[in-house]
Amino acid sequence: MKNYIKHNEWQIIEEGFDPHLNKISESIFSIGNGRMGQRANFEEVYTGETLQGNYVAGVYYPDKTRVGWWKNGYPEYFAKVLNATNWIGLNITVNDEVLDLNTSEVLEFSRVLDMQQGTLTRKFVVKQVNGNVLEVEAIRFCSIVDDEAGVIKYTITPHNFDGKITIESSLDGDVKNQDSNYDEKFWNEINAREDGDYALLNLETKKTAFWVSSAIQTLIKQEGKDLGLKPVFNKKEKYVAQQFEVAVKRDQAITIYKYAVNLSSENYKKEDLEKATIERLKKVVAKGFDQMLTEQANAWAVKWQNGDVVIEGDVAAQQAIRFNIFQLHQTYTGEDARLNIGPKGFTGEKYGGSTYWDTEAYCLPFYLATAPQQVAENLLIYRYKHLEKAIENAEKLGFRHGAALYPMVTINGEECHNEWEITFEEIHRNGAIAFAIFNYIRYTGEQKYLAEYGLEVLIGIARFWSQRVNWSIEKEKYVMLGVTGPNEYENNVNNNWYTSTIATWCLKYTIEAIDLVRIDNTSRLNEILSKTNFNVEKEINHWQDIINKMFYPEDKNLGIFLQQDGYLDKEQVLVKDLPAVDRPLNQKWSWDRILRSCFIKQADVLQGIYFFEEDYDLDTIQRNYNFYEQRTVHESSLSPCVHAIIAAKLGDLDRAYEFYLRTSRLDLDDYNNDTEDGLHITSMAGTWLSVVEGFGGMRIKNNHLHLHPVLPEKWESYAFKIGFRQAIVTVKVDKQKVTLKNENEKALSLHIFGKEEHLIANGTLELNAHSN
Amino acid sequence: MKNYIKHNEWQIIEEGFDPHLNKISESIFSIGNGRMGQRANFEEVYTGETLQGNYVAGVYYPDKTRVGWWKNGYPEYFAKVLNATNWIGLNITVNDEVLDLNTSEVLEFSRVLDMQQGTLTRKFVVKQVNGNVLEVEAIRFCSIVDDEAGVIKYTITPHNFDGKITIESSLDGDVKNQDSNYDEKFWNEINAREDGDYALLNLETKKTAFWVSSAIQTLIKQEGKDLGLKPVFNKKEKYVAQQFEVAVKRDQAITIYKYAVNLSSENYKKEDLEKATIERLKKVVAKGFDQMLTEQANAWAVKWQNGDVVIEGDVAAQQAIRFNIFQLHQTYTGEDARLNIGPKGFTGEKYGGSTYWDTEAYCLPFYLATAPQQVAENLLIYRYKHLEKAIENAEKLGFRHGAALYPMVTINGEECHNEWEITFEEIHRNGAIAFAIFNYIRYTGEQKYLAEYGLEVLIGIARFWSQRVNWSIEKEKYVMLGVTGPNEYENNVNNNWYTSTIATWCLKYTIEAIDLVRIDNTSRLNEILSKTNFNVEKEINHWQDIINKMFYPEDKNLGIFLQQDGYLDKEQVLVKDLPAVDRPLNQKWSWDRILRSCFIKQADVLQGIYFFEEDYDLDTIQRNYNFYEQRTVHESSLSPCVHAIIAAKLGDLDRAYEFYLRTSRLDLDDYNNDTEDGLHITSMAGTWLSVVEGFGGMRIKNNHLHLHPVLPEKWESYAFKIGFRQAIVTVKVDKQKVTLKNENEKALSLHIFGKEEHLIANGTLELNAHSN
Repeated sequence: MKNYIKHNEWQIIEEGFDPHLNKISESIFSIGNGRMGQRANFEEVYTGETLQGNYVAGVYYPDKTRVGWWKNGYPEYFAKVLNATNWIGLNITVNDEVLDLNTSEVLEFSRVLDMQQGTLTRKFVVKQVNGNVLEVEAIRFCSIVDDEAGVIKYTITPHNFDGKITIESSLDGDVKNQDSNYDEKFWNEINAREDGDYALLNLETKKTAFWVSSAIQTLIKQEGKDLGLKPVFNKKEKYVAQQFEVAVKRDQAITIYKYAVNLSSENYKKEDLEKATIERLKKVVAKGFDQMLTEQANAWAVKWQNGDVVIEGDVAAQQAIRFNIFQLHQTYTGEDARLNIGPKGFTGEKYGGSTYWDTEAYCLPFYLATAPQQVAENLLIYRYKHLEKAIENAEKLGFRHGAALYPMVTINGEECHNEWEITFEEIHRNGAIAFAIFNYIRYTGEQKYLAEYGLEVLIGIARFWSQRVNWSIEKEKYVMLGVTGPNEYENNVNNNWYTSTIATWCLKYTIEAIDLVRIDNTSRLNEILSKTNFNVEKEINHWQDIINKMFYPEDKNLGIFLQQDGYLDKEQVLVKDLPAVDRPLNQKWSWDRILRSCFIKQADVLQGIYFFEEDYDLDTIQRNYNFYEQRTVHESSLSPCVHAIIAAKLGDLDRAYEFYLRTSRLDLDDYNNDTEDGLHITSMAGTWLSVVEGFGGMRIKNNHLHLHPVLPEKWESYAFKIGFRQAIVTVKVDKQKVTLKNENEKALSLHIFGKEEHLIANGTLELNAHSN
Repeated sequence: MKNYIKHNEWQIIEEGFDPHLNKISESIFSIGNGRMGQRANFEEVYTGETLQGNYVAGVYYPDKTRVGWWKNGYPEYFAKVLNATNWIGLNITVNDEVLDLNTSEVLEFSRVLDMQQGTLTRKFVVKQVNGNVLEVEAIRFCSIVDDEAGVIKYTITPHNFDGKITIESSLDGDVKNQDSNYDEKFWNEINAREDGDYALLNLETKKTAFWVSSAIQTLIKQEGKDLGLKPVFNKKEKYVAQQFEVAVKRDQAITIYKYAVNLSSENYKKEDLEKATIERLKKVVAKGFDQMLTEQANAWAVKWQNGDVVIEGDVAAQQAIRFNIFQLHQTYTGEDARLNIGPKGFTGEKYGGSTYWDTEAYCLPFYLATAPQQVAENLLIYRYKHLEKAIENAEKLGFRHGAALYPMVTINGEECHNEWEITFEEIHRNGAIAFAIFNYIRYTGEQKYLAEYGLEVLIGIARFWSQRVNWSIEKEKYVMLGVTGPNEYENNVNNNWYTSTIATWCLKYTIEAIDLVRIDNTSRLNEILSKTNFNVEKEINHWQDIINKMFYPEDKNLGIFLQQDGYLDKEQVLVKDLPAVDRPLNQKWSWDRILRSCFIKQADVLQGIYFFEEDYDLDTIQRNYNFYEQRTVHESSLSPCVHAIIAAKLGDLDRAYEFYLRTSRLDLDDYNNDTEDGLHITSMAGTWLSVVEGFGGMRIKNNHLHLHPVLPEKWESYAFKIGFRQAIVTVKVDKQKVTLKNENEKALSLHIFGKEEHLIANGTLELNAHSN
């Protein structure tokens, strides 16, 4: 855990330069706009430790699988989000010495991520080896208005010298992924060109043949005046640059404006790409930096207007929740159903492929409540588009008749992961995808999604579960053998309670969905049944039999659901009794020791209780929470938020607050010592959930919004805004009262503290705070 | 399965050249002498498909581990037996055309492995592109008398031309391992030299810095007369050669004699190595090919005299058992306790590291009965030497206080393997190592081995087991969680019956061993107890508690031991009902499907019954055999022999014969379609076991030899010879009678068909054959 980020309500601030923290800061200060993004690398040369990263959404490379021992069924490749052309490069030479913070004396340094306007600013003063002292202020952003463009304003002020500054403003495509399995580079050059104003570089990915065309234009002002310099064009393999030389005087600043665009063949025909790139560049150059910055700030203001969470009395908590929301918006805008939310977004390479079950289980509720409905729908449609591939994937594993198994990790619908205990066995992901359909309809009330898309997916998933269980003569029940639950600290177990529970839920919900579509749209149902060769009587009877006779492990004495068969055979030790030197377990213990122990990475029984809360009484929830929480080490970033929500529900506000802090400041404080690899983007949605569903107690039941707000002791107040169907409601909670404001023209009835209340159009309602 | 090897009692014969079978034949026709060995590659250039392999015992390379997803505790490297300098090379150019079977028309071709004299002979007639027709007869062997030497006699007869033949006789160290993880070459050149007679090449392995010095001398005779040619010396990086040019006439043969030696720094000081190499070469050159061949045949005759198995009435079975015995002797001679028996011996690279549990479980009994006692003892001492490393290995996994976990795969005592379910969990290997000590003492009666070496190993192993179990509050028993049994088609299971059974056996035997050493040699016991910090009362009490309260899964209804917890939850399908297209499962099914199924790679319950046969009554054995045999797919080469032995014991001779054929002709008929990778050397000992312990019913009980010979219907008779303590007994079984011959000067009493009999010195005993 680290503690170097300054607490501030709207900004992430680093002060002073510590090279050992640089890769962590490069992650934390990442910027993006859903279409492209990048780590907070320096514009100028930096020869110290760095992880260079520029990413373009949807552009990937199928890197040949690396494996120790091949298992039948493994995929041939792991699709990787690609490190793409570096468009920020400004190689600055001052009186013949290259500007490099690694070789200079850094006298002052600060890095600021301004979440209100969506910019990254860096200021520093350095003394070079040759004695020159200069000051730099660099501000850049990826525009969320012009989402294929990024722009930099880089101001250099000589403090103690006159002389010559050379600037090489580049597009460098000669990059590689740090996690390239065989140390290959993934790009080929298609062409490059320039016209005196712009320089363009068009690259193609190997194998996948995506084209990404990038172009830059660089302008230099001195003392506010455009110098009108024409660049010298430099060209190397996969590299173009515009070079300038400027005479400078002590204390006279020069400012470099660098405009860059990145367009991909995902959005343009290849033959049109170059032209579109140049046009797009010209458009943003014409707009200019200041105008772009104004638009950027305005656009972010709208996002905050709709989705801010305000916490009073706790700057660290305030900063953290905004940071999480900000990074989610930078990663995914929901405008393109081909895209999804990578665990690291645009902030690192780790986990390569873009889509995990995180999207459905954690991110969807965030976008449902804070973004236009289309955003959540696009996340569902992404999986609908992959249904055929999920069926092929299941066939490879021996399943038949339209059974679908969605991949553990994917970018295009094909499985990428290759650990047998995950790839083949962590199949609960299929459940989360079905649950997301249910959750979407529960939230939006839009049942027609079932007929249009959802039911086909549900049928594929239900068929998978019905084939994946088998009848145990021993138990006289259906069992589910050889699975890995969300608690990945158990592998290849039998009857994982969570997986079995979500499996039968899928069967039930699919039966229900068939009935619903039958009522709503019989002809569409018949179309789907015909398309899927569905034998209504036979298949549903079989599913019903499984629903009726499924085995769920439990311990009646303890009154808990058992994580899996044999869990109580383990030596029962509590996390509080684990020596500090043994933690985190995944860095200190060998894998078998972790597996053999009772310790839990994330408690999947609690995940199941979270999903299906209404099925369990409070005592049952309390007993399971008490039991599993004491055994959970939270070494998954997805773990603390679920505990925060359940703890809040159970009135354990101190623990809920603790979990909230852990999830919300996971990256800012580098809890797990891995922020340098990139941010935990998907778990950031869990942070939002722990505020809104945890402290806010927000639920949707029977088409009604329910709230049960409680206030952590440390906070003066908090407020959040959610969109629910036609309504937009602001919920503010302080020590005395809960204030609800209907921001819309339509009245809304909702349940608060279990009691139905009415919020008139634009009306406000005040209630006493709950003592809980 | 293939069927191209001609059946012959003493020879392995291939006739006609099929390039697609070449890699298989290269494995089958491999030659070696325990100190070095090689695949049956061609001497002349061959541009077709081939796996080149020359190996020097004990010389390895720690190849950096390749892994998909790192798990804590994985080793950094996988030690690989190295492909070493190729000493057989004879590049033959005939009237300027390189001799190459891949580019010539092969008119005649045969390859013969003569097991009686230990030679590989190849004859062929080819027509080259230029029209030359020539005949070659090449005979070579690795001398088991001069075990650092190999020799080739290569005769070329021009059939239809006069002209010029150029011969480049080489040592080529510019070789690599096919399974190099990162495509590296593992050798550096130290130096090379020549003196007009010999050429020498001295190489060093990277990282491990082994030196292997090779030298050759090449002589050429024409029409029986030494031409006295002086070679031209050719030198390239890691390559030396002697080049000759000979004028030839139609039908006048030339014969090339190539003498080669390979000496390693394992056996010489580096500074003495070159000198020793030259001396050794001179010695064998002086001896000459014919003399060496005579000595080779004589030495093999002695081996056969002591260890032949003679089968009458079934040439395929006869050929097969001799092939298995022959290859075992080529691999391991037992003269060097630093060496062990790799699963592929000197016949291929697969499985890299040299030592698996195969040695203790399968090979040891073969050497106990057929070789001087020192051979088996050296196999045990090998593990004794690795005890410290086994303790370190256990410490890495969190075990303490001198607990020892021997590696799954090793060459120097360190673990090499990196699949968590094997490396960390297939811990039954520890049991086999303890059982080998017991087995050695049971067979030899040499209890003093315990005091000298065995007890320290047993204490380390017993401590491991005592820490590896845990108390289950649920079961009120000790349980063993997260293991993989010998049946590797189950991973990470709880309470594998075999592992738990051998674990408590180890505890019992160690307690017994402590008592035995106390009686025999109290001072040595005290020394060991002090060295190991052994707390007699506390540790033994704890062990005794585990012995008393261990959990073993069983099914009382079926009357069987259960392979592991939950085995009967699986869908119970029998192998006979498996569609042929699904087999072998490991090539047709995804890994999870195999794990989830009830199908068994090798039946570990039966392995346990085989080890501890005396603990179970015949009905129990029969029930378990019936149950597990029907579910076993025998996709491990180690599987059929155990089934053969138990089937024979149960009187199921037809099945026993079937299993025997499967184990004995596994490689000759390429049952598993993998012989091209190398031979299954260690399972060859299992073949011998299935004759001697299976059909012969040989057991050692209470210091007595027991026999219960039965005869497979297809055989006229079989005979084998075993050494037991002072005695050497020949057992011959035909349809009418069993004949026992005491080949020694000492009377022996033994049990046959359960009845005690006496064999006087050099005496013969005839009994009626058993009806069984």
